[in-house]
Amino acid sequence: MGDADIIIEAVPERLDIKQQTWEKVGNLAPEKTIFCTNSSTLMPSDIAPFTGRPEKFLALHFANEVWSKNTGEVMGHPGTDPAVFEAVAQFAEEIGMVPIRIHKEQPGYLLNSLLVPFLSAAGTLLVRGVASPEDIDKTWKIATGAPTGPFEIYDVIGMMTPYNLNKDSADPESRKFAEYIKTEYIDKGWLGKGSGRGFYEYN
Amino acid sequence: MGDADIIIEAVPERLDIKQQTWEKVGNLAPEKTIFCTNSSTLMPSDIAPFTGRPEKFLALHFANEVWSKNTGEVMGHPGTDPAVFEAVAQFAEEIGMVPIRIHKEQPGYLLNSLLVPFLSAAGTLLVRGVASPEDIDKTWKIATGAPTGPFEIYDVIGMMTPYNLNKDSADPESRKFAEYIKTEYIDKGWLGKGSGRGFYEYN
Repeated sequence: MGDADIIIEAVPERLDIKQQTWEKVGNLAPEKTIFCTNSSTLMPSDIAPFTGRPEKFLALHFANEVWSKNTGEVMGHPGTDPAVFEAVAQFAEEIGMVPIRIHKEQPGYLLNSLLVPFLSAAGTLLVRGVASPEDIDKTWKIATGAPTGPFEIYDVIGMMTPYNLNKDSADPESRKFAEYIKTEYIDKGWLGKGSGRGFYEYN
Repeated sequence: MGDADIIIEAVPERLDIKQQTWEKVGNLAPEKTIFCTNSSTLMPSDIAPFTGRPEKFLALHFANEVWSKNTGEVMGHPGTDPAVFEAVAQFAEEIGMVPIRIHKEQPGYLLNSLLVPFLSAAGTLLVRGVASPEDIDKTWKIATGAPTGPFEIYDVIGMMTPYNLNKDSADPESRKFAEYIKTEYIDKGWLGKGSGRGFYEYN
């Protein structure tokens, strides 16, 4: 790591692994180096105390398909130095990202905070038997001009993520959706767009 | 109403007014005539008993800006004749709508069932001080390819609708969002795109 100005970590999404990683890196890296986690689910404040430099620690989070969806969500914890925050936002811009400044720790950052309730609502409509994935997607696309509806987005994400997210939910309709995904798709090997079939078929 | 095959009603959104209207129309219209309500918020089953022909009664719901957003959400109640449901879906298609078949009564139909939790999530991010409307919109647009983000959608809908929808909510963050909309926008006459200014300024 020599004289790097910024180190970005993307080790597995487990708090203990991230904490131990940063503890080691914190002992080795020069004092000036800024530390960024790319964690999608863990909060910077839970990792910061292990870095040895909490004021130089924050999250820089890339979206899936970062080559085309080039947001860089920048999120600190209460002890992050505002100048460091701004330096990372500018760094994100320099590497071709659109920096998204998040002023408070928010699980799911911005994107998942919007996407999860939206996709859940679509899943609920489906398991209630209200309408087909095709009609739900069509409605959203016509009304908002979006290129993809919620079930097309599910297919891109893949079936495992919504399954894992919903299977132990407190909401019975979310659990029903997880069960539906499992029996109708996962058990048949239809894991989403990447596997050639999910809610839709792909060539 | 002579020998109309279908009558669509769009009287004010009050259950008593709709019930009284259909009671009168039901006494006058020929037996074959299908009755459709365009109600956005009331359920067909609450109106059906007043029509004198519940099996020929259902909802055909147009979206805002119907000229470009041409969904026709077709939604019956448990007593709607399936053949009548299909006839109305086909009628919607004949008049240039994309028929959306809703198989069970669902408050908010499909569009508002998706839109409300999505927009609420955006409002919550704002009142928590997590990020600016601009950055929230930018994130959504880049990640999903949609032409508009949630705050641009709020501006099209206008401030009064989310205010009325949230002001008496059981959720404190929703009430806080209503209060925020009122003091920061409504009280200043910034009612959304139609008034030239909402979350954004328009020329």
